[in-house]
Amino acid sequence: MEKVYTLSVDTLGSETSYKDILKGLNLSLLRNINYKFKIFGDEELLKKEISKYERLDESSELIHCEEFISMDDKPSDIIKTKTSSSMLRAIKSVEEKTSDAVLSFGNTGALMTYSLLNIKTLAEIKRPAIASIWPNLKGESIVLDLGANTKKDSRYLIDNAILGSSLASILFKISSPSIGILNVGKEDIKGSDEIKLAADELSKLSDTSLINYFGYVEGNDISNGLTNVVVTDGFTGNISLKTAEGTAKLFQSHLNDAFRSSLISKIGYFLSSLAMKSVKDRLDPRVHNCGILMGLNALVVKCHGQSEFKGVSYATDIIYSLLSNDVNQKIKTYVREIQHK
Amino acid sequence: MEKVYTLSVDTLGSETSYKDILKGLNLSLLRNINYKFKIFGDEELLKKEISKYERLDESSELIHCEEFISMDDKPSDIIKTKTSSSMLRAIKSVEEKTSDAVLSFGNTGALMTYSLLNIKTLAEIKRPAIASIWPNLKGESIVLDLGANTKKDSRYLIDNAILGSSLASILFKISSPSIGILNVGKEDIKGSDEIKLAADELSKLSDTSLINYFGYVEGNDISNGLTNVVVTDGFTGNISLKTAEGTAKLFQSHLNDAFRSSLISKIGYFLSSLAMKSVKDRLDPRVHNCGILMGLNALVVKCHGQSEFKGVSYATDIIYSLLSNDVNQKIKTYVREIQHK
Repeated sequence: MEKVYTLSVDTLGSETSYKDILKGLNLSLLRNINYKFKIFGDEELLKKEISKYERLDESSELIHCEEFISMDDKPSDIIKTKTSSSMLRAIKSVEEKTSDAVLSFGNTGALMTYSLLNIKTLAEIKRPAIASIWPNLKGESIVLDLGANTKKDSRYLIDNAILGSSLASILFKISSPSIGILNVGKEDIKGSDEIKLAADELSKLSDTSLINYFGYVEGNDISNGLTNVVVTDGFTGNISLKTAEGTAKLFQSHLNDAFRSSLISKIGYFLSSLAMKSVKDRLDPRVHNCGILMGLNALVVKCHGQSEFKGVSYATDIIYSLLSNDVNQKIKTYVREIQHK
Repeated sequence: MEKVYTLSVDTLGSETSYKDILKGLNLSLLRNINYKFKIFGDEELLKKEISKYERLDESSELIHCEEFISMDDKPSDIIKTKTSSSMLRAIKSVEEKTSDAVLSFGNTGALMTYSLLNIKTLAEIKRPAIASIWPNLKGESIVLDLGANTKKDSRYLIDNAILGSSLASILFKISSPSIGILNVGKEDIKGSDEIKLAADELSKLSDTSLINYFGYVEGNDISNGLTNVVVTDGFTGNISLKTAEGTAKLFQSHLNDAFRSSLISKIGYFLSSLAMKSVKDRLDPRVHNCGILMGLNALVVKCHGQSEFKGVSYATDIIYSLLSNDVNQKIKTYVREIQHK
């Protein structure tokens, strides 16, 4: 019998509705049959809604929570004040090993803080990172860190290369994903000391069978899809991600204005609306933006706070794929291979 | 009689054709009649082409150059080896005060190096910065530094705030432009020490009549147009700019695919093609991407290496506006006001 994986889902504290969450979980369950869910939230509402999905209902445990973390809560405050929030209880279920992973749509800072305190960092990794899957011209790539750790140090960049490669090898099914370090140019002389140090180290490791270091990549290379993994510090990664989101929104807004500008362009829009929808779906942050907290003793995934059911099911699929391919074991294999170098 | 401004234009070493350059200069000259040009390049070709534009012909001096800087030349090499390049001669004309500003389409690193060595930094400013005008949901904003100075220091950030405010006040005709520091969150506790120091300093200066410090802004706020000026270090700015370019290109590519996906969407595209063109024009980096080197004793502007005539005329207009409003005097006024605080 195949192994069953349990996912703890925090349904409170974001604009993502519990209805979208349940619909998304159900969709993913139809594709990944060995899934079980612990769903933390308003039991009465959840009970009524989940009855629409027979299989999901059978595979889920509902845990009633009243307290939740709001988007405005400061991570430093909640540790003492909110000791029974749905988010914390979801994380505790992993700490207590009654669950394998956590999915949340809420406050990222709080999720990070709770995770660090309760699930803790893998012994093999210095600091956790947030990774995300970016669409690009060739398909998708992994970019990290997107804001977990804004300190700049070559060791964190190397850790991020290991975490990103582990993710990419599982999600994209490639044995040795190419790794680029985000920099302001491709020449060796570019960049800060910690970047040059990390590049030297990764070059040396490139003759192991796992690490496939490409070299420096620039901001536009993320969308070009030059490498499977793009490694950066949490400060640069966070600004890069949000710049991309802002640009996509600006593009979309101009496009909407343009299509409303005349009757003919309105007809044009109507005729091409299916095509337009596919573009939106391919780039929509509500579908793509889940941040995967890597480097902890268990997987924690934060989805966009305005996710719709498609985004929920997408994230739930990713978690299943990472669990069933034992991503943390993969990370340990990387570290072992590097240490034996 | 109104003052006449002379602009030195380097026409060699990029993919922008001399034909586009002359057409663009001519367009700008029709709008800014007190302009003169020194045009550095292949005299024979230029002479033939410029005869198409009577006014431009009358207002221009052609300077024949054979040597040019290629995109692959390393800044460190050219100083000794290329002593009569069109780019260097354009810069020398400013140093010798026979011209007021330089426009080039070539190698940015070389242009920076030549400018620093020959035009030199303003006494009032620690390090020059590259500024750019970004389209946003409300109009446009100034973002800097985009790669001139990748070192992180609060003093550079404050200089960038002064340079950016001077630019924005002239180009957007506002007396006290709002300034944001690019960061990974809006809360005071976010960011590195140099960011916090710069924020403290700018907050203190905010009761002068010139400095209007807003606070921290995030990557998506650039496109949202939250502030008139966005200040960052050259490393982060460069990656942010290139990420935005890459995202716009990805969006455009998906859109093109989508419109080709069926006959109906092709017809839709045809009907909405005018509207689509306006979107492209509003976001096209060939129109918008000129980097303004600020903080030197004279203005140096680098345009995208694939600029078309519209981009050339846009950049030439901007230079005229900055010259006729004496941008460097403006910078000095800012610094004086701050020092008297």
